[in-house]
Amino acid sequence: MQMPPLKNLQQSILAGDRVALGQAITLIESQKSADREQAGNLLAKLLKHSGNSLRIGITGIPGVGKSTFIEALGSLITSQGKKLAVLAIDPSSPHSKGSILGDKTRMQKLATNADAFIRPSATGGNLGGVANTTMETILLCEAAGYDVIIVETVGVGQSEVAVKNMTDVFVLLMLAGAGDELQGIKRGIMEMADILVINKADGDNIKPTNLAKKVYENAIHLFTPRISDWLPPVLTCSSITGEGVELVWQKLNDFQSLLKDGDLFKENRNQQKKLWLEQTLASELLQLIKADEKVKALFPQLEQKVVTNKITPTQAVDEVMQEFFGDK
Amino acid sequence: MQMPPLKNLQQSILAGDRVALGQAITLIESQKSADREQAGNLLAKLLKHSGNSLRIGITGIPGVGKSTFIEALGSLITSQGKKLAVLAIDPSSPHSKGSILGDKTRMQKLATNADAFIRPSATGGNLGGVANTTMETILLCEAAGYDVIIVETVGVGQSEVAVKNMTDVFVLLMLAGAGDELQGIKRGIMEMADILVINKADGDNIKPTNLAKKVYENAIHLFTPRISDWLPPVLTCSSITGEGVELVWQKLNDFQSLLKDGDLFKENRNQQKKLWLEQTLASELLQLIKADEKVKALFPQLEQKVVTNKITPTQAVDEVMQEFFGDK
Repeated sequence: MQMPPLKNLQQSILAGDRVALGQAITLIESQKSADREQAGNLLAKLLKHSGNSLRIGITGIPGVGKSTFIEALGSLITSQGKKLAVLAIDPSSPHSKGSILGDKTRMQKLATNADAFIRPSATGGNLGGVANTTMETILLCEAAGYDVIIVETVGVGQSEVAVKNMTDVFVLLMLAGAGDELQGIKRGIMEMADILVINKADGDNIKPTNLAKKVYENAIHLFTPRISDWLPPVLTCSSITGEGVELVWQKLNDFQSLLKDGDLFKENRNQQKKLWLEQTLASELLQLIKADEKVKALFPQLEQKVVTNKITPTQAVDEVMQEFFGDK
Repeated sequence: MQMPPLKNLQQSILAGDRVALGQAITLIESQKSADREQAGNLLAKLLKHSGNSLRIGITGIPGVGKSTFIEALGSLITSQGKKLAVLAIDPSSPHSKGSILGDKTRMQKLATNADAFIRPSATGGNLGGVANTTMETILLCEAAGYDVIIVETVGVGQSEVAVKNMTDVFVLLMLAGAGDELQGIKRGIMEMADILVINKADGDNIKPTNLAKKVYENAIHLFTPRISDWLPPVLTCSSITGEGVELVWQKLNDFQSLLKDGDLFKENRNQQKKLWLEQTLASELLQLIKADEKVKALFPQLEQKVVTNKITPTQAVDEVMQEFFGDK
């Protein structure tokens, strides 16, 4: 890839240049080792300029209206003079990239908003890789002066945990369902949420929404609160009429204030950085051992034994360790 | 945990003893190192008795009716004299275990069926761990004589990839939606599916289901087929009336026959075993390096530097590697 020199890239990002920011993210997403090294240097330089944003994780099942919700919330945020970055994480698509309808047709208002920066995820089927890249992208956006970072995730699965692990506040979008308000939502995801929002509260849907709100509020009471003094609020919202969007933004700020009054905001981020370190360690170790000449020679034989059911993977790993480390 | 001696456990499992199978799975799910070693020995002994089943992965968003579908399909399978094991994988719930409604109230018919064995997942928030345990549980079930293993996953996310990586055939359950047949389903998940089933094709839902079938069939044509001679069929099914369930079972068998006519069935399993080996290697390596005395001494300082934004995780990992491996 043809790239500006690192120093220029760094300065342009700090000056808030969107093109430079986009180039830097592409650099970070690259798998080439020369690019990885350059990306590492860039991040090291920009690290001290990172951290000054509110990082919001948003999740919900497909069809819940995440894009229109983010458009509505995002427009409110930018109207208050803040710069907003929207990142999407989607590890579900190893073959293609993103949804059938594509990311370009989503969030058309924000896409033309000078204070908003939208970036779809680097997919690739490897959640660890996607998570790592998204974390690095957050740092770049912060260095470029973005005040609010929304990380959007799709579906109800493992990517929620990854996004929870890189954001300050976690919002679960829901719909008033056909009587099965609780069945469809996994308790684990609800327990992770700091703010619950029932979307599409408009027209004929207002009454079912208010009913669902009561059901969810009762359910929330059954959970052990993760943060004392914060019972996750259940809000209702219409991304079309705009009703309720301001209250969501206010609650987001309330939550941030509560965290920052104590040490929780910082503690949470510190924990996240430790986890990030551990994930980086695991992936680098694997690369290293697989590049070892002795292991390279032995590995195919062990693989063959595993494939033919002669030994279990654990037994094979014992042999790899023996070969690599010897009597170390 | 009080366990029978390993030899007895092994023989009881081979004799198809359900209690012994349950005990062995509990042993495998244990985190204690003594249990891990015992579990490793048990698996090594049983390995040569594994592999003789059809492994079916089933996914679909919450509310699609996975439990009733598995009940209907499972009852058909056992009525043909086959033994069925149903495993559920759900990494989304690190706090609690499983869904709010619990696993016990799901699949009541199969739960009392002598030829069916149902086991919810070991949750724990760590997908790698869950996936590894599920793979080992599949082997145990096969050694205990189960002919069909259904691995059920929840939601639209990373756990689908994990389940795809441990099964022979992958079924996506869907619903006829409110006009947005394609929006909600990620293309990546659809591309992973070998068989698509539109569930709840009963009553007023039959007409929308047939419409949705056409839409999906047109979409499927746009994909590059993963397996030549197999265009993933779009079926409709009612788990309540039973309509369509037999055709699903037939297509599952057709797919298996197609794979086994060539080398694809074996090739796919071999690939899966290689991946399993790699995942085991990564997790063992991380455990090993974190147990090293020099690393243990250094690590907290590096963590501190990462936490205070002095260095990036990648820079910290470089130092860990230097300390652990020295000039190796």
